[in-house]
Amino acid sequence: MADTYLIGMDFGSESARGILVNSRTGEQEGHHVHPYSNGILTNSLMGHELPANFVLQVPCDYTEAAERILSALGNGKTILGIGIDFTASSPMPARADGTALAALHPEDPHAYVKLWKHSAQSQADAINADGGEYLENFGGKLSGEWLIAKAAQLSSEAPAIWDETDRFIEAGDWLVWQLTGNEMRSLDFASYKAQYSGSSGYPEDVVPGLTRRLSAPLQVGSPAGVMTAEWRQRTGIQGDAIVSVAVIDSHVVLPAVGAVEPGVFVGALGTSAGFLILDDEGRGLPAGLEGAAFGAVLPNLWCYEAGQAAFGDMLAWYVKTFPREADLSRNFASYNEAAQALGPGEGGVLALDWFAGNRIPLADSALSGLLVGLSLKSTAAGIYRALIEALCYGTKTILDLALVAGVPVRRVIMTSGLTRNNPFLVQTMADVLGRTIEVPDVENPTALGAAIHGAVAAGIVGSFAEGAERLGARSLQSFEPDQDRLADYQLLYAEYRRLAADEELRRAMRSLHMFDARNRQYRQRKPQEVEAAQ
Amino acid sequence: MADTYLIGMDFGSESARGILVNSRTGEQEGHHVHPYSNGILTNSLMGHELPANFVLQVPCDYTEAAERILSALGNGKTILGIGIDFTASSPMPARADGTALAALHPEDPHAYVKLWKHSAQSQADAINADGGEYLENFGGKLSGEWLIAKAAQLSSEAPAIWDETDRFIEAGDWLVWQLTGNEMRSLDFASYKAQYSGSSGYPEDVVPGLTRRLSAPLQVGSPAGVMTAEWRQRTGIQGDAIVSVAVIDSHVVLPAVGAVEPGVFVGALGTSAGFLILDDEGRGLPAGLEGAAFGAVLPNLWCYEAGQAAFGDMLAWYVKTFPREADLSRNFASYNEAAQALGPGEGGVLALDWFAGNRIPLADSALSGLLVGLSLKSTAAGIYRALIEALCYGTKTILDLALVAGVPVRRVIMTSGLTRNNPFLVQTMADVLGRTIEVPDVENPTALGAAIHGAVAAGIVGSFAEGAERLGARSLQSFEPDQDRLADYQLLYAEYRRLAADEELRRAMRSLHMFDARNRQYRQRKPQEVEAAQ
Repeated sequence: MADTYLIGMDFGSESARGILVNSRTGEQEGHHVHPYSNGILTNSLMGHELPANFVLQVPCDYTEAAERILSALGNGKTILGIGIDFTASSPMPARADGTALAALHPEDPHAYVKLWKHSAQSQADAINADGGEYLENFGGKLSGEWLIAKAAQLSSEAPAIWDETDRFIEAGDWLVWQLTGNEMRSLDFASYKAQYSGSSGYPEDVVPGLTRRLSAPLQVGSPAGVMTAEWRQRTGIQGDAIVSVAVIDSHVVLPAVGAVEPGVFVGALGTSAGFLILDDEGRGLPAGLEGAAFGAVLPNLWCYEAGQAAFGDMLAWYVKTFPREADLSRNFASYNEAAQALGPGEGGVLALDWFAGNRIPLADSALSGLLVGLSLKSTAAGIYRALIEALCYGTKTILDLALVAGVPVRRVIMTSGLTRNNPFLVQTMADVLGRTIEVPDVENPTALGAAIHGAVAAGIVGSFAEGAERLGARSLQSFEPDQDRLADYQLLYAEYRRLAADEELRRAMRSLHMFDARNRQYRQRKPQEVEAAQ
Repeated sequence: MADTYLIGMDFGSESARGILVNSRTGEQEGHHVHPYSNGILTNSLMGHELPANFVLQVPCDYTEAAERILSALGNGKTILGIGIDFTASSPMPARADGTALAALHPEDPHAYVKLWKHSAQSQADAINADGGEYLENFGGKLSGEWLIAKAAQLSSEAPAIWDETDRFIEAGDWLVWQLTGNEMRSLDFASYKAQYSGSSGYPEDVVPGLTRRLSAPLQVGSPAGVMTAEWRQRTGIQGDAIVSVAVIDSHVVLPAVGAVEPGVFVGALGTSAGFLILDDEGRGLPAGLEGAAFGAVLPNLWCYEAGQAAFGDMLAWYVKTFPREADLSRNFASYNEAAQALGPGEGGVLALDWFAGNRIPLADSALSGLLVGLSLKSTAAGIYRALIEALCYGTKTILDLALVAGVPVRRVIMTSGLTRNNPFLVQTMADVLGRTIEVPDVENPTALGAAIHGAVAAGIVGSFAEGAERLGARSLQSFEPDQDRLADYQLLYAEYRRLAADEELRRAMRSLHMFDARNRQYRQRKPQEVEAAQ
């Protein structure tokens, strides 16, 4: 009997990555990466300058990437299921037949995909001023990066395009539509990015005419349909090729790392850090966290979202700004070795990890990083260690908010690059949290999560739990907390929290942020003014 | 007519430096440095371990240094006057004939000079608990480094030596006694280090039996006597060789840099920074400053003392901890060039300069350095600039305390190494203070100040003002404040002051200081405990 396969496709910001998974053995037998031809558009479009804060993508880049990946991995093979994860919120306008308006109006920026990084903040601010019950699970605030704010921007700034927009749709949902011929939206996108709720649907009247441009979403793991004949021809794929509804890229990893039950706290430690907390009780959004929805990430589970704005990039900033080795590739290893030889807080330096502002619990991008306890005996390695410790205190702040809200966190799982490259960081995390940290040993976890979604949709597995069991990470490395260090960290964490709560300090941070922003504008303007005066 | 000369001798912590000054032209025609044979004793004495916090010197090291310097500079020359400055408070016990007890009891640590760094803090704390009006001009607190605390320590810990002590005397006064045969004490030492006042004398009954071991002091610039025949023979010196009463090393520089009138603010910017403020009104110690006395530093003038615990050493710490150049000798220049290319506070980083604790206004050595406003865009040069700016805000804090107390500061003079090596620092000081900074161009200013004291004592000049005019710095370099930068610095300085006043932040600093001190002790004890347990 010939082998049968699943394909998982992860659509990131710069490129898409696909993997081919043997549906019987669970082995990854192939992978393929395709960068988007047009990348990310921020400066200009067709030779015209883009407005500030515009961050666009081109819809046909996604179909091109899908075609290349599916051909490379699936040509001539029997594919049972396909799963797709996508950045969000990255919505776009389309016609009722699925035609992207970007193909019809290539000269108009508003016809393109507004990538997640694109922020319609002024529209979000205006909407937030009115408030609304639909924001209850999102800390009372719509983000400028979400679909509703972007719809408000499109309808007000490009009314002609808006008139032609039959569907305003997440690019991930649009790609599923292209592959299957069916507009089958994802409850994951709808819940977190368009504030849909099972009981009351999409919020009404926030943006006039928006609701009729959306459609009712399906639970993740639902089959959106089989791949169309045209796509089978383009890719050479055989078999049913059932496509699952799409899922948000930061959510899809859960089944791949075995996080499918309530009480699991999952961290993705990358440039920044994202956290997902699974729960089975409807207790609403824990105070200080960022978003909550039921059944959207995984069926029948609440999932709370949280994050740290700076994480790996803060450490990268430090070792790059203060190189320790002439050979820069040795920099991180050298700092880690030296820092690991020290004790908790050794030297008495404490940091606040707000180098890109604070997301939780203050949600204030004008806040900044802090080092206190500096002395003439402070060392470069001691300060590096203080930064690592501060990242862990930031994570503990998030965990504690969940615990205080009554969420029974039973397991802590950490994924992504830093967990492999920086075991000292993961050990410190275990020491600071006072918890066993599980690090799954798995290749391409995000694309693998997408493949599991394809398996669920195609009925290859009966549930996400079974998918995790059969196709997910085979082993987990455990980092156990050290009890001696834990005692020191309890004291230091208390200091971190008190500093984080010092309003005078935050006032100073905001004031310095304004001072610098004002002077930066002034310096940028100055040469022109000098010219004009001449 | 043969030339006539003055000699100035500066007795520092590690060595003594002498200069030969032509009394007619004011030219420096020679200089000689002699390191103390026994240096600074902190670990052991005659093979026996010294108690913790003991910092001793050997009296005959001073006479040996004096003999070498006077011979090298004065042999065969006509010397009219000799001035001596000395570290303080560095007191020692002596017999009524001037014999140092260290020569009689070489095995007893208490027979030696207790160098200024030696701290009898527990004795000072006990004395401070009782309070006393004599501390009014010293912020209500006796320092463990001062004579009275050291007398309390000697009398309680070595009563036999104390019984033999006819005179308890500053080493500088003792050296003058050796050279002239006359016990002629300095009002400068007596006022600042033994809390003598013109109206009430030495404080009575603080240390039983102390007052009869002291003697009434003379104004600085008073002749203590002519050099003894024995010393003339030992050095080959001719002429009257009138020796002035001694003066504190940090005070002696004033006439050498032209600071002889009320309303002058003088900073010595070295490893740490010391400030002297001259005034002619009796308004008492300005709140927050450290010490005040009348007529002790210069006749008929009040002089207020203040300082910053870390100054040049903080910058040295930074460039050494985070080297910017493979060639370390280029480090400072490289940082200065890069920092100078930035604007005030550019990048939004602000520092507190408390890397060795804070002296003014908080007098708390458990406080620590701070960096706030850090972001992923912060640069090494931007942080360096923030540190330089913080040093200047610390100086402005001191200047402002004097101004608030009503002291009419008319001139600001900055001296010592950093003013020559780091013009960017001096310019930033001008910008932050909003004041012209005068930097005197003079070699060996401290020893030259001592020579001017010798000239006053010998009647070569009629006053310190005339001494400054005829023998002091010939030219001053002026640094003018930039009005644009001044505006930015007013805002940043206000933030610095608010942070410095944030009690929650100070609480955190003290807590981290205690945490680190406790853990350091624990780590030091640990190996022995492990051994003991085996």
